[in-house]
Amino acid sequence: MQDPVHIVHRQIWRDNGVSSGERAVAEETAVALTYNGGSYAVMMATPRDLEDFATGFSLTEGIIAAPSEIDSLDVVPQDDGVELRMWLRQATAERLAERRRHIAGPTGCGLCGIDSIAEAVRPAAVVAPGGAFTAGQVMAAMAALTPLQTLNLATRAVHASAFWTPKAGIIALREDVGRHNALDKLAGALARSDTDPTMGMVLLTSRVSVEMVQKAAVIGAPVIASVSAPTALAVRMAAAAGITLVAIARHDGFEIFSHHHRLNLSRQPA
Amino acid sequence: MQDPVHIVHRQIWRDNGVSSGERAVAEETAVALTYNGGSYAVMMATPRDLEDFATGFSLTEGIIAAPSEIDSLDVVPQDDGVELRMWLRQATAERLAERRRHIAGPTGCGLCGIDSIAEAVRPAAVVAPGGAFTAGQVMAAMAALTPLQTLNLATRAVHASAFWTPKAGIIALREDVGRHNALDKLAGALARSDTDPTMGMVLLTSRVSVEMVQKAAVIGAPVIASVSAPTALAVRMAAAAGITLVAIARHDGFEIFSHHHRLNLSRQPA
Repeated sequence: MQDPVHIVHRQIWRDNGVSSGERAVAEETAVALTYNGGSYAVMMATPRDLEDFATGFSLTEGIIAAPSEIDSLDVVPQDDGVELRMWLRQATAERLAERRRHIAGPTGCGLCGIDSIAEAVRPAAVVAPGGAFTAGQVMAAMAALTPLQTLNLATRAVHASAFWTPKAGIIALREDVGRHNALDKLAGALARSDTDPTMGMVLLTSRVSVEMVQKAAVIGAPVIASVSAPTALAVRMAAAAGITLVAIARHDGFEIFSHHHRLNLSRQPA
Repeated sequence: MQDPVHIVHRQIWRDNGVSSGERAVAEETAVALTYNGGSYAVMMATPRDLEDFATGFSLTEGIIAAPSEIDSLDVVPQDDGVELRMWLRQATAERLAERRRHIAGPTGCGLCGIDSIAEAVRPAAVVAPGGAFTAGQVMAAMAALTPLQTLNLATRAVHASAFWTPKAGIIALREDVGRHNALDKLAGALARSDTDPTMGMVLLTSRVSVEMVQKAAVIGAPVIASVSAPTALAVRMAAAAGITLVAIARHDGFEIFSHHHRLNLSRQPA
């Protein structure tokens, strides 16, 4: 397996001259996801936490409903990449094969099984009511993120997804060069550790596009809080899925785009 | 067609209280690319410059070698999205159908035609020697970027790709919620305007992953300059493709990761 951090040599230009030296950059690897011997997708990803990625991708793509539907999972190094080799339970494998037959007509697209606009913007599942949080807890959760982003501290080039609960703080954090992959890794980590997703918040460092909301809905998290901004479609999807969408969460505060009823925004005694 | 900027209502929490009001966010739309009546891919994209996107995506995916291979291109609004409806020249359509037959086995993946690790990390075409640039030109090009990012100025949430030449400055700039889409839009804009790609620089606001280098190589640009950092694989791909990769280009300078011979880094007279 490749190291997720790679040292490269580069030159530096500044107004007062040229220097050169080494810099840590994030590795990126082609990761093939295969099910029962068949290739499903190839994603470019950070080579770390790949078992979580395999499980989370399978969940958020709707291929499995629970990690137990994967009979075996092997991380198999290949030339120029890694295969995440999964064998599914028979009933799950048959459902996937049926879905693929449906897609794989002579003209069908197979972008991870999405061959229509309707499927790309399908309504997310509505999440459970779940926990309620104070503004101070949102601020504390976001503040806890940075020091745990070890790959990003080294490379300044990877996104993180994390899960925070009032009782335990950040209980899982995953990083990847792709923001979708980071959230899939988190989904896998939570499912594999049998974590109750309804009592915490999903924290993101990235822009919140509609796919991020769809993945959080599959996880079952009632709150998303992100450093960055949401898209308009993500706001609509969060509203429809019953998710509290907090974004532009910075050191001086945050903004709430949907279902603010879960947040107590009054000032608490210090 | 949806407006690329959408106004939403949201609450703002700050330490000294709660307020509320409107905020501009970036729209995001499901865009289906179809060729000769068959669906190829559905991408989430900013609903602007979609003709450029259709052409650029077709080029960087290797479906066409030139815009003239698209006989007709229509932007067709659909429920919940947009179809980019293309009809290809007969020879091109037959080549695509052949490629798809190859992919669409009972177990084949169709992630935009990529069903193997080898295809995902295929070597990029080697670019022509092209122009040479001074450090001052790199700085001037990057400085010209921000004021032209009109969608980002409104929403603070979209990426830009632009093309800069010493003679004309920024001659094309495209924005999108997805960085890959922004570069595909630029590729389309350059090809449709018959721009010589060898005498300028591709400017990016985003991280440089391997796919960004592969797309720039299809464009035929000898230099990539980005605000953000590259991945290790992107550095290797740029080196192999003969591309000068400038990254972490900020107000105080920049770093060069490959083929620095195209850059004159000596101090020029003011």
